[in-house]
Amino acid sequence: MKVGILGSGDVARSLAKGFVGRGDNVRLGTRDPSSASLVSWAKEIGPNVSLGSLADAAEFGELAVVATRGSAVPEVLRLAGPKNLVGKVVIDVTNPLVFRENAPPSLSVGHDDSAGEQVQRALPGAHVVKAFNTVGNSLFVHPKLPGGPPDMFICGNDAQAKATVTKVLKDFGWPTVDIGGIEGSRLLEPMCILWVLSAMSLGSWEIAFKILRPAAKA
Amino acid sequence: MKVGILGSGDVARSLAKGFVGRGDNVRLGTRDPSSASLVSWAKEIGPNVSLGSLADAAEFGELAVVATRGSAVPEVLRLAGPKNLVGKVVIDVTNPLVFRENAPPSLSVGHDDSAGEQVQRALPGAHVVKAFNTVGNSLFVHPKLPGGPPDMFICGNDAQAKATVTKVLKDFGWPTVDIGGIEGSRLLEPMCILWVLSAMSLGSWEIAFKILRPAAKA
Repeated sequence: MKVGILGSGDVARSLAKGFVGRGDNVRLGTRDPSSASLVSWAKEIGPNVSLGSLADAAEFGELAVVATRGSAVPEVLRLAGPKNLVGKVVIDVTNPLVFRENAPPSLSVGHDDSAGEQVQRALPGAHVVKAFNTVGNSLFVHPKLPGGPPDMFICGNDAQAKATVTKVLKDFGWPTVDIGGIEGSRLLEPMCILWVLSAMSLGSWEIAFKILRPAAKA
Repeated sequence: MKVGILGSGDVARSLAKGFVGRGDNVRLGTRDPSSASLVSWAKEIGPNVSLGSLADAAEFGELAVVATRGSAVPEVLRLAGPKNLVGKVVIDVTNPLVFRENAPPSLSVGHDDSAGEQVQRALPGAHVVKAFNTVGNSLFVHPKLPGGPPDMFICGNDAQAKATVTKVLKDFGWPTVDIGGIEGSRLLEPMCILWVLSAMSLGSWEIAFKILRPAAKA
């Protein structure tokens, strides 16, 4: 599959590596595709990753991923071009974080709206699926944790798009819990803050949520 | 310990049973302490549970628990009498649920406020700790689930009060994750809805959250 990733930070790079490991062709879209550190990173990953503008990556991908800082999302989607994403599955990995001095991050939106819904409204022709936002990027691909695997919560309005993302997550080593429409982002984004506070409380960032459930009946 | 429980539904009764099992003396406070079904339930539990008015229960408890429907909380606290709870640990188990036809419940408050904070504001002299709101009452006491035990998220402004609740939870079979001040309820209340949606998705209400973490270093 051809995958366009919007963003070039740690989250974007972890996902790119995961998709390449799955046999996909990845284009990373960024405002500065000639950045030396990015070029050297891409060389390391190999021939199945390429760099381009945000619009390049959006056009390239059969599936796209929004993987930038939360505050950058509106501008990134504008530069990517909503018309380049029409009819496509778009995974929204972002959290609408507000960073504060000497305090954990908070959310810029919530309760009656969410970043996931904002992304869906900005890309009315795309099928947005929220995923990967309730765990750190070090655990995105084949997380190894005692008692694992953890569960990935997803939501989105299009069942077919969620089936595609469920398959990707399965290949990444994650079972999924589908909590319904994209408005479920109102629940999954607070969970990102809960993840941060839990990590601080437990003294490790290598943590992930799991839903314990009864043993399957024979 | 003497425990006053405000409420008389399934959540209140499950907690009462848990406290009695731990050796505590429980008084259940309700608007109608002579209700036949409640009297017969109390008889079944034994001599360590008694029934009374909401004010009776609040006065009786060294520790109190708010365990009513979310929409009833302001009136229940008014009837219990904030002066009866001054200086006490108060566990807030409630969720500010809005029930809708043909749809899962939603929250009446969130993002920049929460039921937990409302309870703390209504009881300025008490030490409110949010707990037991992210799991169903059938799992409150010694939950038996493969891969368990699950984790209980708690928050509150007073460290000593959280230590008391952590001890109670330990006796109930739950490790705790302390996520900070009572404003953490803004995260734990959405998690109740996530619990409902996950239960619907997984086809079981006997589910609970756990945080997977790296193995402890030797």
